[in-house]
Parts: sequence; structure tokens; C-alpha cells
Amino acid sequence: MRNSENRPRRSRGRLGVWLIGARGQVATCIIAGAAAIRRGLADRTGLVTALPELAGLDLAPVEELVFGGHEIRSWSLRDSAAEINRRAGSLSRELNRAVARDLDAADRNVALGTALGCGPTIRKLAGARQLPEDGRPLARLVDGLRRDLEQFRRKNRLDRLVMVNVASTEPVGEAPRCGVSLAAFRRALAANRREPNLAAAQLYAYVALEAGIPYVNFTPSVASEIPALLELAELQGLPHAGKDGKTGETLVKSALAPMFAARNLDVLSWEGHNLLGNLDGLVLDDPRSNAVKAASKEKLLRQVLGATSPNLHSRVRIDYCPSVDDWKIAWDFVHFRGFLGTKMILQFIWQGCDSMLAAPLVLDLARLVDLAARRGERGLQTQLACFFKNPLGATKHGLGEQFADLLAYARAAAPAWGRD
Amino acid sequence: MRNSENRPRRSRGRLGVWLIGARGQVATCIIAGAAAIRRGLADRTGLVTALPELAGLDLAPVEELVFGGHEIRSWSLRDSAAEINRRAGSLSRELNRAVARDLDAADRNVALGTALGCGPTIRKLAGARQLPEDGRPLARLVDGLRRDLEQFRRKNRLDRLVMVNVASTEPVGEAPRCGVSLAAFRRALAANRREPNLAAAQLYAYVALEAGIPYVNFTPSVASEIPALLELAELQGLPHAGKDGKTGETLVKSALAPMFAARNLDVLSWEGHNLLGNLDGLVLDDPRSNAVKAASKEKLLRQVLGATSPNLHSRVRIDYCPSVDDWKIAWDFVHFRGFLGTKMILQFIWQGCDSMLAAPLVLDLARLVDLAARRGERGLQTQLACFFKNPLGATKHGLGEQFADLLAYARAAAPAWGRD
Amino acid sequence: MRNSENRPRRSRGRLGVWLIGARGQVATCIIAGAAAIRRGLADRTGLVTALPELAGLDLAPVEELVFGGHEIRSWSLRDSAAEINRRAGSLSRELNRAVARDLDAADRNVALGTALGCGPTIRKLAGARQLPEDGRPLARLVDGLRRDLEQFRRKNRLDRLVMVNVASTEPVGEAPRCGVSLAAFRRALAANRREPNLAAAQLYAYVALEAGIPYVNFTPSVASEIPALLELAELQGLPHAGKDGKTGETLVKSALAPMFAARNLDVLSWEGHNLLGNLDGLVLDDPRSNAVKAASKEKLLRQVLGATSPNLHSRVRIDYCPSVDDWKIAWDFVHFRGFLGTKMILQFIWQGCDSMLAAPLVLDLARLVDLAARRGERGLQTQLACFFKNPLGATKHGLGEQFADLLAYARAAAPAWGRD
Amino acid sequence: MRNSENRPRRSRGRLGVWLIGARGQVATCIIAGAAAIRRGLADRTGLVTALPELAGLDLAPVEELVFGGHEIRSWSLRDSAAEINRRAGSLSRELNRAVARDLDAADRNVALGTALGCGPTIRKLAGARQLPEDGRPLARLVDGLRRDLEQFRRKNRLDRLVMVNVASTEPVGEAPRCGVSLAAFRRALAANRREPNLAAAQLYAYVALEAGIPYVNFTPSVASEIPALLELAELQGLPHAGKDGKTGETLVKSALAPMFAARNLDVLSWEGHNLLGNLDGLVLDDPRSNAVKAASKEKLLRQVLGATSPNLHSRVRIDYCPSVDDWKIAWDFVHFRGFLGTKMILQFIWQGCDSMLAAPLVLDLARLVDLAARRGERGLQTQLACFFKNPLGATKHGLGEQFADLLAYARAAAPAWGRD
Repeated sequence: MRNSENRPRRSRGRLGVWLIGARGQVATCIIAGAAAIRRGLADRTGLVTALPELAGLDLAPVEELVFGGHEIRSWSLRDSAAEINRRAGSLSRELNRAVARDLDAADRNVALGTALGCGPTIRKLAGARQLPEDGRPLARLVDGLRRDLEQFRRKNRLDRLVMVNVASTEPVGEAPRCGVSLAAFRRALAANRREPNLAAAQLYAYVALEAGIPYVNFTPSVASEIPALLELAELQGLPHAGKDGKTGETLVKSALAPMFAARNLDVLSWEGHNLLGNLDGLVLDDPRSNAVKAASKEKLLRQVLGATSPNLHSRVRIDYCPSVDDWKIAWDFVHFRGFLGTKMILQFIWQGCDSMLAAPLVLDLARLVDLAARRGERGLQTQLACFFKNPLGATKHGLGEQFADLLAYARAAAPAWGRD
Repeated sequence: MRNSENRPRRSRGRLGVWLIGARGQVATCIIAGAAAIRRGLADRTGLVTALPELAGLDLAPVEELVFGGHEIRSWSLRDSAAEINRRAGSLSRELNRAVARDLDAADRNVALGTALGCGPTIRKLAGARQLPEDGRPLARLVDGLRRDLEQFRRKNRLDRLVMVNVASTEPVGEAPRCGVSLAAFRRALAANRREPNLAAAQLYAYVALEAGIPYVNFTPSVASEIPALLELAELQGLPHAGKDGKTGETLVKSALAPMFAARNLDVLSWEGHNLLGNLDGLVLDDPRSNAVKAASKEKLLRQVLGATSPNLHSRVRIDYCPSVDDWKIAWDFVHFRGFLGTKMILQFIWQGCDSMLAAPLVLDLARLVDLAARRGERGLQTQLACFFKNPLGATKHGLGEQFADLLAYARAAAPAWGRD
Repeated sequence: MRNSENRPRRSRGRLGVWLIGARGQVATCIIAGAAAIRRGLADRTGLVTALPELAGLDLAPVEELVFGGHEIRSWSLRDSAAEINRRAGSLSRELNRAVARDLDAADRNVALGTALGCGPTIRKLAGARQLPEDGRPLARLVDGLRRDLEQFRRKNRLDRLVMVNVASTEPVGEAPRCGVSLAAFRRALAANRREPNLAAAQLYAYVALEAGIPYVNFTPSVASEIPALLELAELQGLPHAGKDGKTGETLVKSALAPMFAARNLDVLSWEGHNLLGNLDGLVLDDPRSNAVKAASKEKLLRQVLGATSPNLHSRVRIDYCPSVDDWKIAWDFVHFRGFLGTKMILQFIWQGCDSMLAAPLVLDLARLVDLAARRGERGLQTQLACFFKNPLGATKHGLGEQFADLLAYARAAAPAWGRD
Repeated sequence: MRNSENRPRRSRGRLGVWLIGARGQVATCIIAGAAAIRRGLADRTGLVTALPELAGLDLAPVEELVFGGHEIRSWSLRDSAAEINRRAGSLSRELNRAVARDLDAADRNVALGTALGCGPTIRKLAGARQLPEDGRPLARLVDGLRRDLEQFRRKNRLDRLVMVNVASTEPVGEAPRCGVSLAAFRRALAANRREPNLAAAQLYAYVALEAGIPYVNFTPSVASEIPALLELAELQGLPHAGKDGKTGETLVKSALAPMFAARNLDVLSWEGHNLLGNLDGLVLDDPRSNAVKAASKEKLLRQVLGATSPNLHSRVRIDYCPSVDDWKIAWDFVHFRGFLGTKMILQFIWQGCDSMLAAPLVLDLARLVDLAARRGERGLQTQLACFFKNPLGATKHGLGEQFADLLAYARAAAPAWGRD
């Protein structure tokens, strides 16, 4: 998976970060946050790449990232920032004022995206406006998306791009039939064959990889993991990573579940209840999106606890609760059996500001996948497993061992340690 | 710390486990539990040494362990088991009945211990009976303890012994002045100089190490870590380990704290409140014992979070709450700062049956320190760090990295993997 | 609703308590518990009627109650008690042994019941055995149930009977069409017209009221509140009460919700998540029964908070979690807005042993509805509102005001206070 | 306690509210909040007197209250509001800007107060400035405080005054010896006899009552309940009330504890742990103030649960945790015994913004005690019990019954309902 040279091209030059869902809450916090750091108004708390252990890596500076992206909603980034301030309070009015021009600059880089296959709940976000897929064949739709990226690069004189999907969860749980191979996928596009499971996230990933752009899927939607796109990434020699950013309840689970395994405790039940109030929550009120999300969250436990907890019963509930806005509340009830069959209980309650947990991780991933590309690494980047609920290509699911992998990668990739 | 050969003497032969606090709740659960396993009445849930990853180690079989120990209370192990059944319910009447003769057999191996320097709360457990330290010089007291061990070995035809301290927390937080060197320690014993900080746990550890017996401190009391005893262990070429078994709140903390560090989140406050109802709790109602215990629990956070959470405020409360009996309830409130200064909260509630969490770990430690002795390993056994709140000699405090060390040790020590 | 005389017929004579679901967990705890009290093995904790404030009432002594009932399962009360011991641990082996003959005596009073309209999940409890409704017209089915009651009365030389439904929640949320009037209901029975919503709980209530027996519905099933049966109770001059015993999460809600109202705090969200592991939980895994139960739990909040929390969002989740057995775990998250719009949070976690909470309340209700009958009170007994999640006929939903009503009733009904 | 006429003098005329601790967090929120309501920027959520049930009372309008008070700190109300915004976030910058001139107006009514007997922690708040008690006899100190009130009245052309103590908890748990009678109290002042327990709160209350001003003690400090001041209030025919506003954990306890009593459940343990981060918390880091506060919080349980829970073990911990600022976090663990001795658990977690919970209650109390004065009611106002942790003179401690008393009072006192 890693190239033999391990000598990254230098990070000089400008890196553009193309966000799918470019005016959503996560994107707004990313763009506002990077601007706040550039302006010296915020520190780097929450950025994994700011840890001393990763200091040796030749990463693109957060201060110099340029943002753009696809979006189907018509409001502005300023509107979105104001809304976050008004509802969750996590972006202060002072900060929003200080970065207003940065938000505007990014806004000028936002192009109209697609909601192909995203179902009515997501489609509603676009209001009455026509989207590219309406009455346009798929091949032209894809061409349009590609041109948006080219224009972003040209207009901003960017040297390199990465694409990160931070859009709403699509209600599609399976790969499309045409995803079985790159050839079949291309034939479907050419023939304008709109299978039900062919959806926006895949088109975006296809456009990125075809254009030589590393790709990160921060959502649970089905994207670069379909065979067609695995093939394309390999063909293009590009790194990609996913999926579903590990920001809250699952993060805690991936830290706690290995504890039970390491103590040979038999977890009988692990029941999780999540409350969400933001747009993410509204979209997850759609039972299909909800099922995709819940499935993404449930894998971890069986993988970590399979050997020691053969009878594990687990369930993940995700409910929309408008008043909590961008705050995600999770209660987990863990019932386990110890020595001589004694039953015991661990419960936790998580109260996290979702976008503020996601935003720095997206900055991390953009920088790390860009580094991987410069180092010539291709395919699924398993050293990034600690960032994802559902780490594609990875076999480790405990947070500790995933993080150890990232540190080992960092030691190997740091010029100071490197063999170059 | 490890010998060069790594070839353990074969585990054939009988291993005796000498417990300090031999009729306490933990000891009772250890002895009843091992008997239940021997009789096929219980599985090995909770035993770390029963994990597949440790299967290759040449450990003394749990079924063949022989138990004895020192105790200052006059009740019997049967009484203790009945009391546990009546109050916490964690030992069932059926199990108690099935192992009654095993408890009696161990009871016959229990000798009268010492409460030197243990303060009035612990002393009260002995009731009106005279203890060895009453009107007997220290040298004779120590001789008596040693003879108890010899008699145990002889009477039960044991090939090897280990000593594990599972007694109540002593109200002594500092090493005695005479603990500065082995010579000074021996002079104090010879001169019968009873410093306030010279207490039972140190005498027991001294007796064990002098008699060539590996030693484990499962309590927060000050014992084999004083310079005099470190020197003695080195001199005798013996392994020892401690201290304070990691069974509940601290176990969870050591699993969760690294998560905050790995995400570069700034923990502002970590407040823990423990409720205990058993004898341990009663002893901890003594403010001095309480301070010793709380200090033992507080180190971890600064060690794991020091780099990422420079302003951490933490406090550990331990309160006696009779109705919870052997159940330990802990509520932890973790307040942390993420991206752009956003404050968030994680809370957990632990409801664990303390003795049932401790008992299997003591069986693990007895077996692992015996293995270390046979492998010729001497000094503090840092591969056992994952078992302790306050892992003497160890530099790692996250549970994940500690457990990785144990697995690495197991791979190195397993004959199948070994280089012998 | 109360008669003018208020002079109860004396409670001398024997009271029989006929339980629908006579070998279920609740029934088993009721029968074992009453026997334990009679035998001096248990105190009266949990019995509302044992409070000093109710001491003046001329209630049938708990020690003299005689139990019988309808059941569709074939196992014995001893089996059920042993199962409760094995799984939830709440009935000890000693107690089960001590009351074994009392359980047997009650078992001899159990007759085969009906599962008409109860759906496949409940029907499955009967196994392969034929139930009375199979191939027998409704009129004969009803006659058979009535004969069971007569036989119980005769065989045990009972002076009075009460019927209490403690069976599983039926998957029927609406009254049957024929329930519109007593005449229509009787016509449907005579014509053997099996509407989908005509179900066992209604037949039982019909049989009781027709036979002059006061009736209590401790379940959320649709029973004596349908117009046909309200009419019958009135005609017969009989008291009845319901529905759905308030034993856990809803009990706490009814104590807490008035606090928010009394402080003029604006509750934005009240989200409850219940975990159940007993048969009740299994039955509620059927989405239809679940919906009936959840609806029964949700009314309270709007009634108590309607005036002060106009925008309340509430949801009640009930999930089956086998490992918790008879323990009901509930997490409630209450998000509220205070002065100057400040949002705050109250959460609670309930860990209650459901049958042990229900059993004493059923004893209370049997005694209190019998008293009401002797006092000549007819119709829905609103002084019993504090016992029910969904208090039929009552306008008060705060626990405090409901309890005040019970106390006022007790003062009025106690001979010592009475004006007779 | 109530006069026979019950005809209040009309509320026309201006009411001044004199706050002890006039620039503290609570006072700042009171003054800012009343201004926000006057300016139409906030609704009346959190004000009990805004409930429909109290609408008939002839209360002084919130919009027309005039604020002043005593304070020992030198910062301004604007500073305090800015600090609250910066730390707890509960006063927004917009609101602070909108009410800045209102804060300034109140600030001009603030006079230098006394910290007599308040100990070093509170004294430190005054910094280096001299306080009136420094080198001035008590009689002159008291005269000075009285003149401050007169000047407030005159300057603002007020028709009536009320005094409310919202200052920090004093480290004094007992009445001073001279408090035994009004004569003894006055002699001590005249003789400048500074007993250790004679402290500021008593002097303020004395000054108010002597000047004909109704008095409310919103703190746990010892004030108007000492015999000397009870006598003075009676003599002057003045209403007074206290003590210790019921805003958080104790509010929830007073709602929940009656539930256990009403169900005849035997509460074994009720353990509460409070985390506070504001100045209140800092002051409570002084063990003496802490003991006064904890004692104030502990009475309730024994009073409500005494009859049904004879063996109750309870403890209240209050710990300073700077990062939570004005947010008070409380975890309560309630362990109770139900039918057949089954042990069960209820836990709750409270996350309340303390000043925002207190502020509207102070507005309520000021209005209600002013009404009582106009109605000629004298002595301790027990209809206000629901507002206090430690309701002086009241025998009811359950929130429900206390609130019922307030509603009964409101019905009696409302002109529309009155018999006058």
C-alpha cells in the first residue's frame, strides 16, 4: 500500500480542499475554524495533526488551505455561520464577524452540486432550484462536476486538491450494480442508466479520482469503497480513505470496548441511544438514512468484542431531537458479566458538539491524505483508521491500536526519521 | 529486567498463594472462585490469563493453586462467604455450599497476622485479640510471620509460593525513614524501632522477599516500592509488582483518558465520585486511608493527559455508603474543550462488584509473577502494569498500551514462540 | 361517584383476587409476596396501603387474600418463581422454598385463559395447546371464563372477588366497534362476531363486571374503558379502575414533570429510552404492542406541561434487552429553557425491578377496589389515579396531587374519621 | 400569620429591591433580566409569578422595579455582566449591550457593604479597600447601612422597599449568643461587642426590619431566623422569609423524595455530589461555608422520608470545579429497597445555570413579600416555602405540597377570588 520510496514531494504550493456539502454545518466550522487559526483567534485544540507526535510530518499548513466545494442549498456560508451561532452557540458572533470575509471567499468557490439518488429529505434542501441531474444525462452531469473542480484549481492557482465528503447521509445502503467494475460504472454513466443505488457520493468520488484528486469520505454514504472506485484509485495511484468520521458515541465505544476485551469480561448488552438536533438529525429521521448510519455504527462492537463476548446484544438508536441543535447526546448502557457470572453495568453519557468535533478531523484528513498522495501512497489509507467509525480496509477497531498505527506511520513518514 | 535465557523452569509442582487479608472479601472470592473453577461450576470470565492471547504461557493451573494467608480477624472463610451472599449477593448460596470444604481447607492455612501501623480502624477488625506486635519485638514478629509461611509450604508440600497483599488500605502514605536502605530497615527491625510509617504491608513484603517468595501488592499501601525492599528483591533476584489493583473507576479512566489525548482535546476537569459499602469503604472512611487511596487514583490522569491538558483540574472522592455493600459506584464528570474552545462533557457511571473484579486479577497476578520467577525475571514487573492503578516502575498509563505490553511479553515468553 | 352513605360493609369474610396472567412474573411476585408477608418472612415495604396515612381503612388483610386466575401458559407458579430467581434474582431460593406450598395452592386455582385478539407473540406463550377461543363461539368462551370464576369462589368459600389484569400488553390500540354500547357488545358476542379489536382484556373485564366483581386493569390493554363496559359497570353499580400500573419511568416522570410546571420552566424535549428484558419486553418487541405501551406512557407530559411548555418534543422508546431480565432500565433526557432563554438539562436513570414494583401495587389496588365496592362506590375510581400511568377518568397527572387525592379519600373513608 | 382583612394596599407606587451582594452573579442576572423584560427582549419563563395561577395577584410589575444594594467588591455591574458572558455564556453580548444603561443605573444605587464575620475568603473579594466595620463601632456601621437604604429610597422616589440577601454563603452556622433576644442584640450593637457568630447577614436583616422593610434571605447564612430578629419582625408587623433559594439539586430532591414516601419505598442511601465553578463555588471551597451550605441541603430528606426510610444514609458533597463556571452539575445516587427487600436505584444528573435559576425566583420573592407586606401579613411567610431549600417556619418539604400552599395563598389573596 505504501510506495517504496516514501519520499514525499515537498508541500510547497497551495492545497485546495473541496468539500461536498460546502455550506453545511461541518463545512462552515471547518472554513471558519481554519480562518480563525490563520488569524490567530483560535488555537489548534482538537487537531490530531497538531499533536507533538505528528509534528515531524511535512503537512500543508492549516493557515494556507483554500476551500471550495459542491452544495445544493442556496444560503451562504455567512448565513450558515449565523445560524450555528443562533442555535448551537458554538460559533460566537465575534468569531463570525472576524472571519466573515474568509467565509465569503470560500463561498465564491462553491458550485451547485447534485442530489442524485439522495431521496426526498435531502433533495428538499435544494428547495425549488433545478439540480444538474434534472433532465441532464449522467455523463454531462459528471462533466459539470469535474469542470467545477478545474475552475476552483485554476481560479485559486492551486497546486494540489483533495476532496472530502461532509454532506448528509444518503439513504442508500448498498453499492449500485454498476459499481462492480470500473468498466461497468463507466458504461452506466455513458448510457445514463440511473440505478436506484447509484447516488451522489459515488459520482463525486468518481470525479475526484478520475481527476487525480485524493478522496476522503467523512460520511456513512456508499462511495469510494465500491469495486469500480477501488479499481479507479488503484489505476490512478491515488490514496483514499473512509468512512464516517468517528466524532462522538462511536469514538467513546472504540476506546471502551477494548477494555472489556482486555479484562476478559463478557459484554451481554451494549445499547446506545443518540439524540441529534441538527440537519444531520433531520436527515436521519428518514428511516433509510437512519438504517445506513446505524449499520455504520454497529460494526465496531462485534469486531472488538467478538472473541470474549459471544452473546453480545447491541442496538444503536438515533433519534431526532430538535432542541439539542448541533449537540449530540448519547447514552450507552453496557451490561457485562464478570467472574463467577456476576453482572455489572457501565453507562456513559456523551454531550458533544458534533460539528466542532468533526471540523478539526476533516482538516487532519485533508492534510494527511495530501501527504499520502505526495508520498506516492495509493489505495485505502489504513493508517487513518482512527478517524473513522467504519475504517475501510482496516482490521483494527480499538482506538488505541488504531492510534498506535497512526503514530507508527508518522514516525516512518517524518523527514527527521525518514530514510531520505 | 528480563533474564537472557527466558527459559522458565517447568510449572510442574504445586504453587501456594499466600494472601495478606486471607479472610477478607477479595480473598474469599479468590478462594471460592478458584474452587468453583476446579469443580467445573464456573467459567474463566474475568481472568486475563484465560484470554487466547495468553494461552501459550506455561502458567500454574488455576485448579491446582493452594491458598493460605495472614489475617487478623477471627471469623472463618465460610462466615465471610455467607456474609458476601447475604449482603452483596455475588456469591450464591449454592456456590458457597459447593465450595464449603475448599474454604475450610484454606482456612486451616490461615495464620494470625499483624496490624502494625495500621491505625485504629483496621486494628478494630481484630477485636479484643492480641496481635503479634503487641508486646513482642519486631524481630520476633517478623520471625513469626516467616514461620507461618514455612509451615504453609511444608504442610501442603508446596514447590513454590507467591504472596499477594489483598488487605485493607493502610493509613500510611509515605515510606518509613528506615526504608531508605535494606541495612537501615534491618537495623530498625533489630532495634525494635517502631517508626509511625513502618507498617504491616512492608513487613509482609520483607518476609516474602527474604524467604525467596515473589510478591504482589494489590493494595495502595506502601510496601515493596520502598528502597529497602527494592534492594532486597534485586539481591534475591526476585520479581515483584504493584500496586493497587485496577478494578473499577480507574480502569475506565485508563481506557478513556488516552482517547482525549489522541484527539488533542483539552480536558479541563475530571471529577470522580466513588461510593463503597464494604469493609474497604469503612476503612476508607478513615481520612488517612482515604487520602492514600485517592492519591493512588489521581496520578494516572496527569500522566496520560499532561501534554494535551495543561490546566487539568481533577479530584477523586471516595465515600462510604453502606447500602451498596461490595458494589462500587462511581460517577465521573469529564469537562473538555475542543475545536474553537467549545466545551463538551463526557460522564460515566460504573456499577461494579469490587471483589469479583479483583479476584480474577489476583489469580492472574499470582500465576504471572510465578512465571516471571521461574523465568528468572527480577525487580518490578512492568509487563503487569495493566493490572494496577499505580503501576510501579512503569511509564505507560493508558490501558491500551499497557495491555499491548502484556501481549508482547506473552508472545516472548510463550514456549511456542520462544527461542528455546 | 361515591355513594352517599360511605358505610362499607365490614371486611369480614374472605377476599379472592383473580389475576389475568396468573403465572406471569407479576402474578408470581404478588402471590409469593403475600405468602411471605403471611409467614412473617417479609415486611410491607412497597405497599401503599401499609402507609400510616391509610391505616384507618377497613381493608381486607393481605395475609388472608386467596389467589387464582386465568393463564394461557402451562408452566407452574413454582417454575415461574424458580425462573425469576435464576434470572433476575429478585425472588431468593429461600423465599421460594418457604412459599412453595402457597404457590401450589394458588396454582390449583388457575384456569386456562384466552388469547383472543392478542396476536401471535402472546399466542406463542400457550405453545401448541388449544385455547378456548379455538373453534368455540364467543358466547361459550365467555361462559367458560365465568364458570372459572364461580368455581374459584365456591371451591375456596370466598365472600368477595376482585379481578386484576396483569397479563401482557395486547397489540390492540383501539376499542372494537362493538364496544360502542353494552347492547352492541352483547350482540357481537352472541353472533360470534370477531372484530380485530375485540380482544381478551375486554372479555375478561366483561365477565368480571357481569358477575358483580370489581375490576382493575393494571395493563395498557384496552379493557373496561370502552363505552360498553363503562355502561355495564354503572348498571351493576361496580367500581373499576385503570390503567397501566405506574411502576417505573412514568412514576418518576409524574413526580418530576410538575416541578418544571411549578417553576414555569419551558421543557423543550423529554426523551425517554426504556430497556426491558422480561417477557413484557419480549412482547413489546412486537411493534404493535410497543405502540400501545408507548402511547400509554406519553400522555402524561402533555397533560402536566401543556400550559408551560407549548413546544414540547417528547418520545418514548421501549427496547427489548434480554440480559436485564426483569430489571427495567430507563434513561430520560429533559432539555428545558429557563430565564432569559438559558437551556439546561436534567437526566435520570432508573434501574427498577419491574415485578417487585408492580406486585405490591396490585395488592393495594385489590384491597382498595374491594373497599370501594363495599362502600358502594361505582364507576371509575379516580382516587386511585396515582397507581396508573393512564388514570382513567382522572384529570390530575402529577403524582403529588394524585397522592393527595388518595389521602383525602382515605381520610373520608376511614371509620375513625368518618361521619358515620 | 395572615391579617384578618386580607385587603392589600394597592401596588401603585414604585417598589425598590435592595440586594445584598448587588454586583454578584445572581444580582447581575436579576437586574439584567428585569431590564430585558422591560425592554421586551425576554419573556417571563422561569418566573413563578408569571404562571396563570398567580395572575390574579396585585403584584408590583417586574418592569417597574428599581434596583440597588450593598456590595463589597469594586467592579461594576457591566463588568460582572461581561464576565458572565465570557465564562458561562448565559448573558449574551447582545443582551448585555441592550441593558448596559440599566446596569449603570442600578450601579449608581450600590453602596459599600460590610463583610463582618464573613471570614477571609469573602473578605478577599473586597480587595484592599476598607470596609465599614474596619475601625468603626457596630452602632455606626449599622447607622451607615440604614442611611444607604434611605438614600436609595429618596433618590429614586420609591414608595416601598424590600431587601433580598443574594450574597455569598457566610461561614457561620450558628446564631450569635446576642441573638437570643432583640434587647440583647441591641445591647451587643451598642457595646460594639463582636461575637464570632455575629455576621453581616444579621446586620442587614436588622437594618431592614428596623426600617420597616420586608426581608428575604435567599442564602443559607444565618439571618432573620434568630430570635432577636423574629421578635423585631413581629414587633414591626413585617413579613420575612427564607432561606436558601431552592434552585437545583435540592429542587429536584424535593420533587423526587415524596415519590418514594408515597410508594412506601425504603430509601437506604441518598448521596449527592455537586460541582460548582462560580464565586459561590469558590467561597464554598472554604470548609466552614461548605458545612453551612451542606447542612442547609441535608434537612429535606429526613423530613420527607423520615417515616418510610428509618435507616436513611445521606451525604451532600459540594466541590469547586472551576471549568463549569456558573453551571451547577449534580449527580444524585438514590438506593432504595422495595417489595421483598429488593434493592433498586434511581440516579439523576442536573446541569443547571445557577444564577439563571435564582434570578427569576428573587424577582418572585421580592414581589410576593411586598404583596404580603401590603396585605399586612407579618412573620415568616410559609406560603413561600417552595422557594427555599430550608423553608423557615414551614412544616412541608415536598415541592408538590409547598406549591399547593402557594396556589392556595394565591387564590385567597387574589382580589378576583377574595372575599373582600
